[in-house]
Amino acid sequence: MAAAPVWSVDPRTGKQREQVAVEATAQEVDAAVRAAHAARGALADRTVRSAFLRTAAEQLETAKDQLVEAADAETALGPVRLTGELARTCYQLRAFADIVDEGAFLDVVINHPDDTAAPPIPDLRRHKVPLGVVAVYSSSNFPFAFSVAGGDTASALAAGCPVVVKAHPDHPALSELVAATLRRAAERHDIPRDVIGLVHGFQAGIELITHPLISAAGFTGSVRGGRALFDAAAARPVPIPFHGELGSLNPVLITEAAAAERAEAIGAGLAGSMTLGVGQFCVKPGLVLVPAGAAGDRLVGALTDAVSATEAGVLLDHRMRDNFIAGVAERAALPEVDSPVTAGAGGEHTVSAGFLTVPAKRLTAEGEHDLLLEECFGPLTIVVRYEDEDEAGSVLGRLPGNLSATVHLSEREAAGEGRGAGILAELTPLAGRVLVNAWPTGVAVAPAQHHGGPYPATTSTSTSVGGTAIERWLRPVSYQNAPEALLPPELRDDNPLGLPRRFNGRLER
Amino acid sequence: MAAAPVWSVDPRTGKQREQVAVEATAQEVDAAVRAAHAARGALADRTVRSAFLRTAAEQLETAKDQLVEAADAETALGPVRLTGELARTCYQLRAFADIVDEGAFLDVVINHPDDTAAPPIPDLRRHKVPLGVVAVYSSSNFPFAFSVAGGDTASALAAGCPVVVKAHPDHPALSELVAATLRRAAERHDIPRDVIGLVHGFQAGIELITHPLISAAGFTGSVRGGRALFDAAAARPVPIPFHGELGSLNPVLITEAAAAERAEAIGAGLAGSMTLGVGQFCVKPGLVLVPAGAAGDRLVGALTDAVSATEAGVLLDHRMRDNFIAGVAERAALPEVDSPVTAGAGGEHTVSAGFLTVPAKRLTAEGEHDLLLEECFGPLTIVVRYEDEDEAGSVLGRLPGNLSATVHLSEREAAGEGRGAGILAELTPLAGRVLVNAWPTGVAVAPAQHHGGPYPATTSTSTSVGGTAIERWLRPVSYQNAPEALLPPELRDDNPLGLPRRFNGRLER
Repeated sequence: MAAAPVWSVDPRTGKQREQVAVEATAQEVDAAVRAAHAARGALADRTVRSAFLRTAAEQLETAKDQLVEAADAETALGPVRLTGELARTCYQLRAFADIVDEGAFLDVVINHPDDTAAPPIPDLRRHKVPLGVVAVYSSSNFPFAFSVAGGDTASALAAGCPVVVKAHPDHPALSELVAATLRRAAERHDIPRDVIGLVHGFQAGIELITHPLISAAGFTGSVRGGRALFDAAAARPVPIPFHGELGSLNPVLITEAAAAERAEAIGAGLAGSMTLGVGQFCVKPGLVLVPAGAAGDRLVGALTDAVSATEAGVLLDHRMRDNFIAGVAERAALPEVDSPVTAGAGGEHTVSAGFLTVPAKRLTAEGEHDLLLEECFGPLTIVVRYEDEDEAGSVLGRLPGNLSATVHLSEREAAGEGRGAGILAELTPLAGRVLVNAWPTGVAVAPAQHHGGPYPATTSTSTSVGGTAIERWLRPVSYQNAPEALLPPELRDDNPLGLPRRFNGRLER
Repeated sequence: MAAAPVWSVDPRTGKQREQVAVEATAQEVDAAVRAAHAARGALADRTVRSAFLRTAAEQLETAKDQLVEAADAETALGPVRLTGELARTCYQLRAFADIVDEGAFLDVVINHPDDTAAPPIPDLRRHKVPLGVVAVYSSSNFPFAFSVAGGDTASALAAGCPVVVKAHPDHPALSELVAATLRRAAERHDIPRDVIGLVHGFQAGIELITHPLISAAGFTGSVRGGRALFDAAAARPVPIPFHGELGSLNPVLITEAAAAERAEAIGAGLAGSMTLGVGQFCVKPGLVLVPAGAAGDRLVGALTDAVSATEAGVLLDHRMRDNFIAGVAERAALPEVDSPVTAGAGGEHTVSAGFLTVPAKRLTAEGEHDLLLEECFGPLTIVVRYEDEDEAGSVLGRLPGNLSATVHLSEREAAGEGRGAGILAELTPLAGRVLVNAWPTGVAVAPAQHHGGPYPATTSTSTSVGGTAIERWLRPVSYQNAPEALLPPELRDDNPLGLPRRFNGRLER
């Protein structure tokens, strides 16, 4: 059987640009994983690791023009967005380099013997070690930041884990370029290039998750694809952690007072957030609770104006475009659903943004409108008009897990008058990030970030953005009664590496 | 259909003692979970939680005589061991109370806005919140420390999660007594008794893991039972974390030099560890690599003497006794396996301790001897005689994941001469705890403890013993742009609760 070709496709025309590679066979996946595994020792030294991450950032910046052009040709996301995304990707690599240098992630805990404990405590010293080779499944919608050199890869390398990336079929040529850049950066530090593997093809992705030497996986994509891989990871003879970010509605609640105070600004802000990047963000606000009545009408009016003025855009691929058009039509056809601005086919290769409205009472109990509680990837949002707080609460209570949940409050509510704190408490169970008077698109790379949430937002309690993403690729090991002479330097009493740690109960910086 | 009775059985006679309860129906499991879920708000206050945990410890101590008697009647573990185990259980509850008070587990991270980041960082504040109701599956072999009031329950309550416990059928009467004690302690702090649910019955355990309001599970038991529940947890419409501690061989490597130096002491120490509690510890050393030759022979001689002198003991139940006798016989029948001290049936209700020997070459490649690489629960260990380091390494390389891995080194090796550090590095991938010149039985409750390890030792990267066990029942939530007036006190700039945290990158104690 001839190997299946992997084509780079221009989403602006639907035409094949070039053949980039062929789909990896099972043997090729096996070879990539084994090579990555064999190279893992080269990542053992934290100093080398952080230097490698910094060089990777530098080299991506050096190749910026070429990379942005390659990314735009395959994704149509445009040079402005892609330049920003590449900057974010480099920032992220450097942030993980800093984390590696600081070493707090090693979670060093030392207990000297204590005979007063029941049972007595012997000499015990714990730190974290890398899990092994990590499989990374690239996203479609972030060709840099959640792909070959994205957060999953950066955090895995930071943890000391080699990576085999499954390229996303929407940007195979870029994937090859980025992988080559990372490998060059590795070689600059005498790290074998095999610490970064790259494979193409759907079947290769399955081979990867079931490979015995893969010890964990990171995924960004759809509920369907992510759940299939999650199931495969759990069904292995030796199950492995699967950190998948699958899907999210990202509900937004507009209080009556907020609408009354600044309906127009909120409507315009919502339009900007839901159409950003042609609605192709996992944190796109996909369901917005707007009060019934005059203030809410003003908000919907402003939203109508702003969305109508939005230019049609190109989605990442034509399958997505087909799914979007069908998804919008199916939702718009439901009883009592109106379409103030009709989303759907724009030109031959584009889609236009729009939104639907529905009375909240249609969503307070199970029924055909439940389709509106499922993510529709692309520039569409659902405006749910509620009569009172209870009705809004009933809709919120029916939502699956989310990456984000947002509330827009009036100035007085935000100052603590009224039930602002109560709303925050109500939104917390729904999501991994709760926002006030802000929009969920734009996920900052920061230690305090949490980009994750109850299933199906993520398949674990982890985050794929921010410093704590490194925790996904580590496991703790304790040493009992090990003489100082044999201990790794991380665990020695005199702390030669100057690590933050917990020493006999006391936190030391 | 009449409800199935739940009997308390005396393992010393195999006779039923009393009917304790009936197996819970699906409706009863549902009611217990819903009641626990409804009561969760009562655990929100950390001050109340830690006071509750301390009262629980006190009340267990007050009821000590009754509890130890009840436990001994059902488990035959004897009052000395059980008194120690109860002390450990109370110590553990208090240790978690201290952890709750300190609040480091909340993992507070605060980032003020930073426009120099790419993309800019808004005001972001992260902490951890409880997951919800936790299902706890009690162990057979630790009626106190890994059962109703054991580490899973203590850590879940410490995290703010109500618990529904599936009682182990080996000690249902004790389970009821302990649950009643915990509930009384809860009521002393105006916490509804429903924060501790208790159900009996195999089917009830299945109902529990599939209940939509169960948000995580802790389990201590067999590979078969644990894997079935793990699979059920992963197959749910909304999968949940399943922290199972399933099985472990706990390999021990005796170096040539260590055997030459102190064969007799090591042989006697091994006998003590493998027969402790009639070999019913998850960290029993189940496979011991002993050098071929004279020093190893002396070690085996000492082991023979000490194990021969060990009295027959009662296992936790008769099914275990049957499995042990059959498991020993099956292993002993393999080619080139010798049985210097024959384990198996002791008296009518007891078993005798013993060990088998096998040349290492029988275990360096896949074959019928692989049965020796599976845990045999009870007082049996496998002594593997190796010719050289490479052969020992080949056997170690074939082991599944373990809770512990141990090496006995000579004085000079321990001081850093020779390959002691290399052996530690070789053992680290095999286990969650690596010991030097010590025995794995006796798992201290300490912040630096890690009681877990690669699968099947555990189904996750977590520990079920020690302070970090609390992490299993929490998930992070970030607040973006939330006004101080609405933030939980944990996340306010002025740190009114005095929590350890990371504030704009800086670790604060």
